[in-house]
Amino acid sequence: MIAPTSSRLGLLIVVSGPSGTGKTTLCRKACADGRAVFSVSCTTRPPRPGEVDGKDYFFLSEEDFLARIDRGELFEYARVHNRWYGTLKSYVFDNLRRGMDLLMDIDVQGAAQVRGCEDELVTRCLTDIFVMPPSLGELEARLSGRATDSPEVVALRLKNAEAEMQHWQDYRYCLVSGSREQDELKFNAILEAERLRSSLLITEDN
Amino acid sequence: MIAPTSSRLGLLIVVSGPSGTGKTTLCRKACADGRAVFSVSCTTRPPRPGEVDGKDYFFLSEEDFLARIDRGELFEYARVHNRWYGTLKSYVFDNLRRGMDLLMDIDVQGAAQVRGCEDELVTRCLTDIFVMPPSLGELEARLSGRATDSPEVVALRLKNAEAEMQHWQDYRYCLVSGSREQDELKFNAILEAERLRSSLLITEDN
Repeated sequence: MIAPTSSRLGLLIVVSGPSGTGKTTLCRKACADGRAVFSVSCTTRPPRPGEVDGKDYFFLSEEDFLARIDRGELFEYARVHNRWYGTLKSYVFDNLRRGMDLLMDIDVQGAAQVRGCEDELVTRCLTDIFVMPPSLGELEARLSGRATDSPEVVALRLKNAEAEMQHWQDYRYCLVSGSREQDELKFNAILEAERLRSSLLITEDN
Repeated sequence: MIAPTSSRLGLLIVVSGPSGTGKTTLCRKACADGRAVFSVSCTTRPPRPGEVDGKDYFFLSEEDFLARIDRGELFEYARVHNRWYGTLKSYVFDNLRRGMDLLMDIDVQGAAQVRGCEDELVTRCLTDIFVMPPSLGELEARLSGRATDSPEVVALRLKNAEAEMQHWQDYRYCLVSGSREQDELKFNAILEAERLRSSLLITEDN
């Protein structure tokens, strides 16, 4: 019999959703609990004071980044404000093989790129969660509550949120945000359950 | 936008695994908690004293059962000790549409039949769990501990268990049985997570 061994692959948990849903807080909490770690991205923007290479980001030159895109080494990438941001396949694959659960807090375009990867390892390890605001009205209330944002910024965020929300059905899980406690329970249940996936178990022959 | 409504379809949770893993106890516990209900099977065996039609089983005549097989009305079925046992599609589909979570405690052949159903409703609602003994040695110890079974019966159950265990990779989840408390936590996490699946959410257009 192809019996499962006691070791397993790591989970690759893609989390998307508009800002204001508490998505990033949920991911941070899961990391603080030791349930998972944030995936470290790479970027061509220069490090800010205090940022550590390999911890906050992998800092790459533009030349290096573009060469890596050409060699197919990037899992997902995007250009934002004239800088490149992305995730290295080698980094993700190494961590998954070591049994590390990785959280990727990325937008719907990035998630689509990850889903498009047909590598067997990714198929075995990938899961995705869309964190949905209870309603656009409630999202507006939450965003307006942030004293730092002008009405124009709030309006732009709402417009972006509506565009992102078109994609909730692309995700295996749709977590409709309620109270912070409820959201945490749901998020943790998903992580607990996904860790029991047969596809993560390493058998004696693979 | 195709927004999710507040209603959802029920889950169809197929649970398999050798006897002695506590699988049936886990299902009963989930039902007692009100988390789900057992799917009611149909059979051609006569009711035993106290058994209620529509609660314990749907009791059908052999002629009716065979006619239903021919009309494609059975979701899965098998002949055991000269009697037919099976599950009616109409029963399952009605309950899923009503948002009722249904547990089916069936063997690997029955599970394969259910998985083979290509109805969109089933694709949206189906999940499956294989409850795995920690090892064959431990399973033997658990089965031998049941004073009611002769060594021959234990040996037969072990042989059947080994055959069933070939199929763990066909299931989305593999719950390797530990203590009863651990198993319950894992089982409940799977149910909680699966209830958050996007595919269960009913949108304004379906």
